[in-house]
Amino acid sequence: MATNIGIPKGTRDFTPDETVRRNYIFDTIRQVFQKFGYLPIETPAMENLSTLLGKYGDEGDKLIFKILNSGDYLSKTKKDLAKISSYELTQDISEKALRFDLTVPFARFVVMHQHELTFPFKRYQIQPVWRADRPQKGRYREFYQCDVDVIGSNSLLNEVELVQIIDTIFEKLKVPVAIKLNNRKVLSGIAEFIGESEKIVDITVAIDKLDKIGLDKVNEELANKGVSSKSIEKLQPIINLQGTNNDKLSTLRILLKNSEIGIKGLEELETVFEYTDFLAVKSNVEFDITLARGLNYYTGAIFEAKPTTVQMGSIAGGGRYDDLTGIFGLKNMSGVGVSFGADRIYDVMDELMLFPDLSSSTSQILFVNFGMEEAKYNLPLLGIARNAGINAELYPEPVKVRKQLDYANSKGIPYVVMIGTEEIKSGVFTIRNMETGEQQKVNMADIIEQFMQ
Amino acid sequence: MATNIGIPKGTRDFTPDETVRRNYIFDTIRQVFQKFGYLPIETPAMENLSTLLGKYGDEGDKLIFKILNSGDYLSKTKKDLAKISSYELTQDISEKALRFDLTVPFARFVVMHQHELTFPFKRYQIQPVWRADRPQKGRYREFYQCDVDVIGSNSLLNEVELVQIIDTIFEKLKVPVAIKLNNRKVLSGIAEFIGESEKIVDITVAIDKLDKIGLDKVNEELANKGVSSKSIEKLQPIINLQGTNNDKLSTLRILLKNSEIGIKGLEELETVFEYTDFLAVKSNVEFDITLARGLNYYTGAIFEAKPTTVQMGSIAGGGRYDDLTGIFGLKNMSGVGVSFGADRIYDVMDELMLFPDLSSSTSQILFVNFGMEEAKYNLPLLGIARNAGINAELYPEPVKVRKQLDYANSKGIPYVVMIGTEEIKSGVFTIRNMETGEQQKVNMADIIEQFMQ
Repeated sequence: MATNIGIPKGTRDFTPDETVRRNYIFDTIRQVFQKFGYLPIETPAMENLSTLLGKYGDEGDKLIFKILNSGDYLSKTKKDLAKISSYELTQDISEKALRFDLTVPFARFVVMHQHELTFPFKRYQIQPVWRADRPQKGRYREFYQCDVDVIGSNSLLNEVELVQIIDTIFEKLKVPVAIKLNNRKVLSGIAEFIGESEKIVDITVAIDKLDKIGLDKVNEELANKGVSSKSIEKLQPIINLQGTNNDKLSTLRILLKNSEIGIKGLEELETVFEYTDFLAVKSNVEFDITLARGLNYYTGAIFEAKPTTVQMGSIAGGGRYDDLTGIFGLKNMSGVGVSFGADRIYDVMDELMLFPDLSSSTSQILFVNFGMEEAKYNLPLLGIARNAGINAELYPEPVKVRKQLDYANSKGIPYVVMIGTEEIKSGVFTIRNMETGEQQKVNMADIIEQFMQ
Repeated sequence: MATNIGIPKGTRDFTPDETVRRNYIFDTIRQVFQKFGYLPIETPAMENLSTLLGKYGDEGDKLIFKILNSGDYLSKTKKDLAKISSYELTQDISEKALRFDLTVPFARFVVMHQHELTFPFKRYQIQPVWRADRPQKGRYREFYQCDVDVIGSNSLLNEVELVQIIDTIFEKLKVPVAIKLNNRKVLSGIAEFIGESEKIVDITVAIDKLDKIGLDKVNEELANKGVSSKSIEKLQPIINLQGTNNDKLSTLRILLKNSEIGIKGLEELETVFEYTDFLAVKSNVEFDITLARGLNYYTGAIFEAKPTTVQMGSIAGGGRYDDLTGIFGLKNMSGVGVSFGADRIYDVMDELMLFPDLSSSTSQILFVNFGMEEAKYNLPLLGIARNAGINAELYPEPVKVRKQLDYANSKGIPYVVMIGTEEIKSGVFTIRNMETGEQQKVNMADIIEQFMQ
């Protein structure tokens, strides 16, 4: 074995078994998206660096994979290389980068293609993204996002539809999830209520951590961020909110009664709950006041789905953003969307052993190879099988039958057909069920018939 | 519109129409690969730079997109930056690169996973590759390859199968092609016959250009490369070879009778032609002595498919390589494969208007939105339609019906259902055929039934 053979850390190869299972997830998600009237787009893996920089915060900028300009790239920098920092040099030697998510490229796409698109534009996009994050369990440097968004419509029916989509996808994948809902306007109302409107980001970031670090640490963090002790005290009944969705809504309606934006957020949530209840969404849909999802661009609904029977972070999440395309010059385009994390969904399904039998993607029949002359008799039969919709292959070399059966076994091929000189003469073939070892005498019509059932 | 909005040159966005058509090509190719018993794998977009460098020649090395190391990458270079060249600096500041094709990552994959795989290993892989080539018509910096290879088998039945796969795919896509075949051993035999064995690469590169530059220029180039005039003279009857595949084989059998390797190559070709004739492959399969495909690693069969009714270079090509994994330390693994260029196939199909009606990927029914209360009645009906397998959507806002019909039109939705207060009372709905403008009174069962046919 050669030395130094490997792949970049945080990336993965996918073997046939893994690829078939991943495709099952992608196909399921894609079918649901289409069932709800969403259309696919694709964008390039590389975007102009200027399109991406500044969209994900300072930390995000550092995690973007930059592509080195081609050719004699140093000739274009006028700076004194002996004194330059990596940060300064990057701007001169890199003008392209790998996409970091699908949302910013989507916004760029909408602005560039606005005159070709029909609004409201319902699109889905299933493509990989790259982040120079520290790799760890469940976090990769190359991973797939499956995004579904409506842009150009303010209707809350879109939020309702996205909850239905989350519910339908995880029902089809058989992954039990809780769907958590919040609203950025409610978070604004809370900041207003405790008299700390300008600290809304610090407050949401802190309470977002409640699950992980507990109430005391959250309060400590709030104090460190300069939130007054009086404000922290006012916040306690809200952080500790208990009961049903309706209980929580009622309590907040009283507390936030003087906050116009807060009341607006509560009304929006109430409408979404009303419709998802009415539509009998199967997953538990919970109002979670601590849900913030860090991303600053959400302006209304915030969604998240978490598996309920296995320890794992969110496997889908999203929200409404009122001005995503504004950064590219197209104002007043409200959008709402959800992103499904296929790689984490894979890990959950693997752990819960939820993958169905996907063996039909491999060959259904292996024809044993007895030599070139016999192959001439076998090959047209393979054509007949394939035309009948059966995946079939002839072992390429006339090696010992035992070895060919081993091949069928390890590839998971369920049936092996043996047609040697004898069988060619008689037209009666032997078919072997690889699971039971049972052998039967059949003709080609029998074989086709058996698989057509 | 913001300034500076765009995408890197040589890359493309794909709108829904384009994505649906591209997926039709990918799905067709994938289905044929699976029908012949090939299994999918995927590899990361990024490979270690050391995996890729030196595999595509000096020119190729320059066309590899390199990824800048993350963080303070300059701190790791000890060199004097004031004097360093771009080429030298790259080795210090980049250790990853975007894959350039699927063949080298496949070889790397086979070596790394050799103990998990079943040989002969029949794999397919459909993923994008990136090359910093000068963009031009039909040549992009990001494009998809659809590769199918068998590794670990010397049998010529693999070559036969690959010709069948090329034939089947283009038959399904309705693209008329000529399949050209040659054999590297025959080219070696020719070099031997004219007494210029050591110049085999120059000779194959020169005669590969026959179509483009004509015979005189080819001879000129050969002379420039130091091929003697006597050798060039001996080459003429071979370059000018005419007639059927059998005519060409017979002539060469006489000319190359003293070249062991040449005769071996002719025998291999003869076997492949014998089987593809016998299997009644529909495309014209031609022995083309000028086919070399530049790539030095082919050792046996060389394939190419070209559309016959439109001006376009090859849209599929490949060959046998006896030692591809040798570069990564695994010796004696012979492989043979073909790569389909999805982007060029798209361009050909577009020009020949070969795409079938793919409108079933969009919604089949738009439900008109008459307001939130009516939506409550409509939404469960949408659920019924979707459960019956019909893609359906409700317009998200209660705007004028005219506007909603325009939306259906521009999205290509064939039917619109109108259920307002009247219809809710009576349970009798109006369905409008958007093509004919015809309206009918129906109930929900009628609608489902109509689409189930």
